Amino acid sequence: MTEMMKRIVQARRPNGFPVAEDFRLEEVPLPQPAEGEILVQVTHLSLDPYMRGRMDDVASYTAPQELDQTMGGGAVGRVLESRSDRFAPGDLVFGMFGWASHGVLPAKACRKLDPDLPPSTALGVLGMPGFTAWSGLEAYGKLKAGETLAVAAATGPVGSMVGQLARLKGLRAVGIAGGAQKQALLTERFGFDAAIDHRAHGDARAMRTALAEACPDGIDVYFENVGGAVTGGALPLMNLHGRIIVCGMIAWYSGETDETGAMPLQKIWRMALVKRLTIQGLLQTDHVARFGDFLREVTPLVKSGQIAYLEDVAEGLENTPAAFFSMLRGGNTGKQVVKL
Amino acid sequence: MTEMMKRIVQARRPNGFPVAEDFRLEEVPLPQPAEGEILVQVTHLSLDPYMRGRMDDVASYTAPQELDQTMGGGAVGRVLESRSDRFAPGDLVFGMFGWASHGVLPAKACRKLDPDLPPSTALGVLGMPGFTAWSGLEAYGKLKAGETLAVAAATGPVGSMVGQLARLKGLRAVGIAGGAQKQALLTERFGFDAAIDHRAHGDARAMRTALAEACPDGIDVYFENVGGAVTGGALPLMNLHGRIIVCGMIAWYSGETDETGAMPLQKIWRMALVKRLTIQGLLQTDHVARFGDFLREVTPLVKSGQIAYLEDVAEGLENTPAAFFSMLRGGNTGKQVVKL
Repeated sequence: MTEMMKRIVQARRPNGFPVAEDFRLEEVPLPQPAEGEILVQVTHLSLDPYMRGRMDDVASYTAPQELDQTMGGGAVGRVLESRSDRFAPGDLVFGMFGWASHGVLPAKACRKLDPDLPPSTALGVLGMPGFTAWSGLEAYGKLKAGETLAVAAATGPVGSMVGQLARLKGLRAVGIAGGAQKQALLTERFGFDAAIDHRAHGDARAMRTALAEACPDGIDVYFENVGGAVTGGALPLMNLHGRIIVCGMIAWYSGETDETGAMPLQKIWRMALVKRLTIQGLLQTDHVARFGDFLREVTPLVKSGQIAYLEDVAEGLENTPAAFFSMLRGGNTGKQVVKL
Repeated sequence: MTEMMKRIVQARRPNGFPVAEDFRLEEVPLPQPAEGEILVQVTHLSLDPYMRGRMDDVASYTAPQELDQTMGGGAVGRVLESRSDRFAPGDLVFGMFGWASHGVLPAKACRKLDPDLPPSTALGVLGMPGFTAWSGLEAYGKLKAGETLAVAAATGPVGSMVGQLARLKGLRAVGIAGGAQKQALLTERFGFDAAIDHRAHGDARAMRTALAEACPDGIDVYFENVGGAVTGGALPLMNLHGRIIVCGMIAWYSGETDETGAMPLQKIWRMALVKRLTIQGLLQTDHVARFGDFLREVTPLVKSGQIAYLEDVAEGLENTPAAFFSMLRGGNTGKQVVKL
């Protein structure tokens, strides 16, 4: 009898916000590792905002997701069978196994995990999102003690790392997130100097007022995760020589727009000139040569508790799409993973 | 009898494109230098696009021009009377004397000129515009041999310096300017690899086609002088990790707009992210500590002819406003000065 595995494929291109029918759960034969490859049983898979972008058939920084193929993404798991010297059965590994119960990858495309840490940390605080935050600030942040940084989606794995790294360098860190529970997490768990509830400040004008109060010396670094009214509120507060690191814009990933999204280039160019801003696109893959530096610096900070993290754990492969939709709507609090 | 001098003051705020009635030519008593000051007879005054911005009562990187006061600006002239050790009568100096026949300034606010060069060069190729180009490329250009740079207003004192510096570093330089005469100057006098006539490509789509032909490997550095259709044509051609240096946008200084000026932030942010662009505002005053380096590097290149320059010389203080209007409309070819 052929052994089987489960996976979720993208069934069609979404029309605006994705829905359940855009995906299909299916059983396929368990693949066998070739020479140099490993077979892994996935224990946790990662859900990330960038996955929404890949669902469209649009050129971006990654190729679009192929239809009828396993949804791509990072995952961690345990080696079942190894045809490589690098891994032994039972090892914990990270690899791009996607939304699937099992996967086969070349051993050199996988990374062995620190057994002293929960494996899911390799998807968040010590994985791609944490590295995104670290590499963006390292390369473009030019952080100076005494400055002010603002970041939204601030309980999430990128935003919470951005804020905590900024505070470790002596900046005032202001976090934006939705709802009362997240406000408490921002200041108590992650140590932000101030927290703003974007749900209580629905448009750019209200957000500007709230940000101005939380940032009495203006904003020197705006780490862009969201777009929308938060961006509209932050832009007028940027200080001379401010840095805007454009990492994501989840508010606009499904074709939505708003007053801020419509702001004309003419105004942005003028603002860039008058304030000599730097607006810098960030993609962590550009900095991958520094991933080892990141792990060396941040792993001890996580182990010592100087950098806190938070995970939202959904259970069961079949619940992955629902957890993904919820994350796109801001329903998660920390790093969204699915435990299989 | 009181000795008199002539000056032009701003009489009122312009309504859109400025007109003659926005200025007033007047005679005022010749000022006398106090201790540490010099009295200068202006021989050449500078006309620059930034002056249009200062005519509005709008916060910008410089304070607005005060009404009924001498129009501000750089000028060169000869010392008539010195109450400072730094200068002797007859010395050629640069200072912010504005649109005036004479002026008094503290000696330490003036710079003595190289007597081996025409004094007007201190207003263009070896002055603020040349330094703008040099400092912008030094600080933000990250020029690499083999890359492609595009710049508009390319026979002007900023654009021609940008293109020539890029070529000296081994880049392909593409210049945009209006009219057949300027096309010839771009390639023959300034050595641009390709020239584009923006008058022959009136909208962003046509400009994009022309730029795509002139930049077969895309654009790595876009030095923004103009805004408008040139910007609209250049943006889609930006390469991965491209740099956009926002130095000016003369097309939009009098409140005009167009399709490119209206491009939504959402699209710009997405482009910045997907291509990991750097969009960087430039103002030369941020880099003034390097002015000496600039003069040391570029003066020999000007003397040897490796860097060419071009000046448009209007004559007579009373003709200054007309020359200014013409410059704002692109009627000048090189650096616009007024000889008194």
